[in-house]
Amino acid sequence: MTEALSLEQAAQRLKEQDRILILCHKNPDGDTIGTGAALCKALLALEKEAAVFCSDPIPAMYEYMQIQRYTGQWTPEYIVAVDVAGIQLFGDAAQPYQDRVDLCIDHHATNSGYADATYLDAEAAAAAEIMVRLVDLLGVELTPELADCLYTGIATDTGCFRFSNTGAETHRTAARLMDAGARVSELNTLLFENRSRQRIVAEKIALQNLEYHFDGRCALTFLTREEITLSQVAPEELEDLTSLPRTIEGVDVGITLRQQPGGSYKVSIRTAGAADARVIAQHLGGGGHARAAGCELMGNLDNTKAAVLAEVEREFRRQEQLKQEEQ
Amino acid sequence: MTEALSLEQAAQRLKEQDRILILCHKNPDGDTIGTGAALCKALLALEKEAAVFCSDPIPAMYEYMQIQRYTGQWTPEYIVAVDVAGIQLFGDAAQPYQDRVDLCIDHHATNSGYADATYLDAEAAAAAEIMVRLVDLLGVELTPELADCLYTGIATDTGCFRFSNTGAETHRTAARLMDAGARVSELNTLLFENRSRQRIVAEKIALQNLEYHFDGRCALTFLTREEITLSQVAPEELEDLTSLPRTIEGVDVGITLRQQPGGSYKVSIRTAGAADARVIAQHLGGGGHARAAGCELMGNLDNTKAAVLAEVEREFRRQEQLKQEEQ
Repeated sequence: MTEALSLEQAAQRLKEQDRILILCHKNPDGDTIGTGAALCKALLALEKEAAVFCSDPIPAMYEYMQIQRYTGQWTPEYIVAVDVAGIQLFGDAAQPYQDRVDLCIDHHATNSGYADATYLDAEAAAAAEIMVRLVDLLGVELTPELADCLYTGIATDTGCFRFSNTGAETHRTAARLMDAGARVSELNTLLFENRSRQRIVAEKIALQNLEYHFDGRCALTFLTREEITLSQVAPEELEDLTSLPRTIEGVDVGITLRQQPGGSYKVSIRTAGAADARVIAQHLGGGGHARAAGCELMGNLDNTKAAVLAEVEREFRRQEQLKQEEQ
Repeated sequence: MTEALSLEQAAQRLKEQDRILILCHKNPDGDTIGTGAALCKALLALEKEAAVFCSDPIPAMYEYMQIQRYTGQWTPEYIVAVDVAGIQLFGDAAQPYQDRVDLCIDHHATNSGYADATYLDAEAAAAAEIMVRLVDLLGVELTPELADCLYTGIATDTGCFRFSNTGAETHRTAARLMDAGARVSELNTLLFENRSRQRIVAEKIALQNLEYHFDGRCALTFLTREEITLSQVAPEELEDLTSLPRTIEGVDVGITLRQQPGGSYKVSIRTAGAADARVIAQHLGGGGHARAAGCELMGNLDNTKAAVLAEVEREFRRQEQLKQEEQ
């Protein structure tokens, strides 16, 4: 059992500690890095020893945060995890630290409570939204550098204020960060208008492979291993390509199949309207949420397509039945 | 000469009038329609006669605003233009009204001052940002319906808070509209994740035609008349495709060529970094801003490409020279 803290209590504990190691999750995104970097800068401003540890390399695009990385220069006395919902998300290299996390600051409702103490705000759109308040409570000035890191977390986790997790408080926090000097215009260009040439090739292939089913209510695209290799795209760059089929007018279910190095297909299911992505994924041995779910299937492309489309059809029929029952 | 009003004065005049006709600009976007719809609803709440006139059809995606359109049901006594920077932007059907606009509410610094009286705030990211304040001054409650219209204006004019016109005040206004009940999540899906199947085809062709020049510092794509016809895409849906080449990593100048029905090529120039789009466009007989400019060229595809690329090269050389002079 983890001890549930108020944010004031969390701030108090941080003030009392020194030699603080900040852990981010593996495959780091803008929120875990931005939040970790901001906390680190705030603690350094309080003249403490502090540094950030992530088991994976920090993507080059986040270089502007000038993160103080932990390189064993001192022995950690207090360990804080930011934006990490469960112990399995730390990654292998974090093994020496993952079982002795003193404090976890997170916004995932699914947080497993692995830390000794936790501050959880599942209403926050991003961990960075919490960190803005924590910086205040630490009595540290919100400098332009801190504001850049925190804006990065909020903007990336909300798809630049487009996703449904965006709340009024998210916008108010963004306003505050702009007032504090965040370079929002430059950051938006860097974060949201910066696709690699490889990614552009992969997108072209995905559009070439796009097909419609069930009177256009389902759009499906795929990338074979050969196509992924040909495009030279990094796997993580394909992540947000999975939203493409769903964003087409009239499409209720968008499917993206990505062949993995071992030959299996990773199936990403995105839905709008009544269709439930989780129901489709569960029938195929996977899981997720109503709007976004997934599974992994062995077999060739034709078999995989057929299996997925059969479940999409079943879900459409289920929804029609539910609608009839309501009437 | 137009009379410059404060927003309080503008509100006062509206309160004193009845039978108010609201004019939007032609090729209407979310801001002119959202602002016009909100003003109309506010005036109706004050029990005035009011209706909206636009010389072009209102796109079906904006149907949720349930706009009260003007159909000649009464004779206008007071005419208000919203988000219209110049008289040429009203469109042919607005001719009976365009020369007798009593009040203009706008956020374009380039507003020509065609109206008898004008409230201009060039700092506002959208006309809707001004309208939120005007609704307050009119003493009308910010209902969820009004908030939907006003959020639409702000979100569409800022590319969902991504463009450089987004200010702290823009985010504060968005927070206020969410508090008032704007259905932000549904609106974002409708406004930003809703590309037509035709548009998807056009995007595929644009990616297939994409080419890189000058070590990848310039990306150029084109759509011939034949390709546009083949895709069946509506010309207005191709507008935001012009930002595609510029969003590729390492690209300083993005060029999009769209062949027009008469055979000429519309050239869209988008820049990042030091390159100046306006300088390139001006050498080709066009104009615009530093980040976005354009021109129209007669000639076949090869000639057009060669002419544009020569000017891109000239601009790269000019920038290098400027840089050397600085050192």
